[in-house]
Parts: sequence; C-alpha cells; structure tokens
Amino acid sequence: MNENEIIYGKNAVLEALISGEREINKILISKTTHSDTKLNKIKELAKNNGIIYQFVAKEKFAEYEGVSHQGIVAQISPIKYTDLDDFLSLPHNNDSLIILDGIEDAHNLGAIIRTAVCAGVSGIVIPSRRNVQINSVVEKTSAGAINHIPIIKVNSLTNAVDKLKKSDWWVIATDASAKDNHYEINYNDMNFAIIMGAEHAGVSKSLLKASDFVVKIPMLKNFNSLNVSNAFAVIIFEAVRQKLINSKVK
Amino acid sequence: MNENEIIYGKNAVLEALISGEREINKILISKTTHSDTKLNKIKELAKNNGIIYQFVAKEKFAEYEGVSHQGIVAQISPIKYTDLDDFLSLPHNNDSLIILDGIEDAHNLGAIIRTAVCAGVSGIVIPSRRNVQINSVVEKTSAGAINHIPIIKVNSLTNAVDKLKKSDWWVIATDASAKDNHYEINYNDMNFAIIMGAEHAGVSKSLLKASDFVVKIPMLKNFNSLNVSNAFAVIIFEAVRQKLINSKVK
Repeated sequence: MNENEIIYGKNAVLEALISGEREINKILISKTTHSDTKLNKIKELAKNNGIIYQFVAKEKFAEYEGVSHQGIVAQISPIKYTDLDDFLSLPHNNDSLIILDGIEDAHNLGAIIRTAVCAGVSGIVIPSRRNVQINSVVEKTSAGAINHIPIIKVNSLTNAVDKLKKSDWWVIATDASAKDNHYEINYNDMNFAIIMGAEHAGVSKSLLKASDFVVKIPMLKNFNSLNVSNAFAVIIFEAVRQKLINSKVK
Repeated sequence: MNENEIIYGKNAVLEALISGEREINKILISKTTHSDTKLNKIKELAKNNGIIYQFVAKEKFAEYEGVSHQGIVAQISPIKYTDLDDFLSLPHNNDSLIILDGIEDAHNLGAIIRTAVCAGVSGIVIPSRRNVQINSVVEKTSAGAINHIPIIKVNSLTNAVDKLKKSDWWVIATDASAKDNHYEINYNDMNFAIIMGAEHAGVSKSLLKASDFVVKIPMLKNFNSLNVSNAFAVIIFEAVRQKLINSKVK
C-alpha cells in the first residue's frame, strides 16, 4: 500500500477523479466516514471509471496518522502513460527502448529510469501487471527522471515485442546463460529495445524466444549476478560508448 | 539504529565481545536489566575494547518487541575488515579496487559491492567516517557479495590514495565535469583504483587532485547524473570488456 503515492482527503481524491490526469489504483474509505455529497460523487466517479473503492475498518488508517485524511485515501499513479502505438508512430532513428519484464523492486525501477534518461533512451515499456508500478519510491529513486521519459504501459509484453519487430525495431534480451556478450552487438544504425528480466526469474522464456538477440554480461567471478539496474547501466552505456565513437569517426 | 545488524540478549552480546570477530558499534542496555555476572562481564569487555554502552529507558526497546532481547542489544558490524597494508603486501597483477568517498545510501553500497564482486574487483576501500558503514541493509542488498571481497577500512582516504600510488597502483577518480571519457582509459596492464564520490557532493577536491586520471561517463541527455552504483557498474564493466578483449587478442 505504501508503494503507491497516496493522496488524502475528500477534496484531493475528488479532484484527482475529476481531472483524470492520474491513474487511481484504489480508494480506501473508512467505514466510519460520514457520507455526504462529496463522498457520493467520489463513489459515482470511481464506479464510472472502473476504479475500485473499498470500505475498511478505521484501524486501517492508523498508518496515516498525523495527516488530515478525513477517512479517505487514494493510491494514485502520478504519471501519465504513453501508448505504444502513439510512440511507434513517431519518427525514430537509432533510438532505444527498455522493456522491463517483471521488475519487482521500486528502487531498481527508479534507478533504471534515471539511467535510461542519462543514456538518452526514448521510452520505458512496463507491463500493466507483474511488475512494480510507478509509485512514490520509484519517483524518488529516479531523481525526477520519471518526468523526462515516456513510460509505455502495455497489457502484453509479447504483443509489444511483436509490434516493435514489425516496426523495424530490433529486440535484445539479456540472459545470464547467453552465448554472446553484450558488447559484441553493434548498437549503431538500428532502433533497439533491450529486455531486462525480473530480479530472480530473469527474462521469461517466451520473450527470450521472440528476441532477435540474446546477450549476457560476462562476469569475472562466478557469483550470482548483477543487480538489474546495474546490469542495464552496463549494457546501455556500452551502446552510448559505441554511439559516441561512431559519431566521432563519421 | 536499524541500519546496523542487531544482536540480542546477554549471551549473544557476550559471545560477540569475546570472539572479537565482529566490530561492535554500540551496546544498549535497558535501565531495568537485572545486573548479574554476564552483564558485568559485558561491561568489562566493552570498556576494555573501547566499545560504547549506554543505559536507556526500557521504552527504547519497543522496536525489538517479539524478540527475546533480555534488555540488551548490540549494533554490530558483521564483517571483518582488511588492513590496507596487508592487502598491498599481497601480489597484484592487473587488479582493481574501488574507493568509496562518502557514500551515504546503504542500498547503493550493497549494489556496489555486488557489482564489484561480479567484475572481479579485488577490494573495497571505505573511510571509517562519513560513509555508510556495512550494516544489515548493505549485507542484504549485496546479495551476499560482502562475504566474497575484502572490505578495507581506512582512517584517511588521502593517505590510502598516497599509499596506493607509492605501491604502483593507478588512481582514477570520477567527476561529471571531467574532460576525458571513462572508456578512453586503457585498463589493461595496470593495477587501478576507481574513486566513486558521494551521491550529491561527488569525489572530494583533494582526492580529485591526488588522482592520476579524472574521467566522466558521457551522458546523452543533460540530466542530473547516474546513481552511484550504476555509474560504477558502467566504468568497471568497461574495464572488464577491455580485459576480455585483450585476453582474446593475446
């Protein structure tokens, strides 16, 4: 629950519902909250927009002690997502994307977003389920980077990969047991999407199969593997290195 | 307080004091704790070893509810540090070190340690002050890597850098405003130490001045900078790339 940005009070929740700018994941209402015009309006708008609201025991609000919540809080997603089709309809030239396949840790997601922005990545694709969503920890860890890059939320990563391939993008998956090293790829002269897998499970088999390349980061010590944000940094900045050297040569 | 590993109870604290294997930062004793032979022994050993113990109100123990603490807890550092001189007296051949200048975040330190182990780094130098110390968050974030690499704690980073240079190590500092890019360094055929600076302040001026090289990671977007663990990953895996390509050529 704490992993989402929380807004408090009837006015804030109502305004968020009216503006529609932010995605509201869930509204919690204390059973002891006094019913009035505003609360009725909140319930009506939530219902119309398919947003879940729950009546919970007032003890549930203990964690929000000290803020004026009036017995109502909403978990909201503070950013506006980009549609993959809209993204692909724009012109792209040696652009890059990162596709996140089930990242669970908010700190990792935040660090990945920050690194992606520094490396000039054009967008971040996350699945609408089985991945940590954009929340206040992610926002904070990204150091504000979240506001500088489109976040593309898709229902199916498999479909997203298919679309990318049909749109002249090359898809590169990362896997610890791959044969090829990440730096053997020539990242110039193509649009490419890098798939990074979940912290423990890695990239799912169906996506590995669908990818054009599968690469690994070679380790000098046989130990576990890199943290996912560090692994992404290594790969994307190899692409940056190649790009800069290439532009110098030209 | 939560950032250290905590051990509970008279026996555990006493054993830790006797073994001397672990560094004990502080012992907290509830004012209501019954004084007995063990407690007296604990106080005596702590005094002899210059370890601080404090008598605190029993309310301070509320956070340890549910564990059998007997009114005594100790904050301990679970690893054994390596001495820089001992480290330098070993043979080194194209080895690497990382020097951490004021890293504040335990997650970052943990990720750096993990990445260092994966990249075959030979040791991690941290200052005894003004840097997050090895604690349970660091241990957890490092995914156990902490047990696979010497942690070298020094009182003065400046002195450490001097010693390294005198021992035929090359010192490379990172700075966002450096002229040279990190990948322009030839990491082969030398022992090198990379200095990574604090999350906000960067590498301190005196260390920048003392370094043999100062390099940056070029950014493709003018945004802030990388998370320090990601920045380290980028640099050290460029060294790994060069090393692997070099060993293939030979």
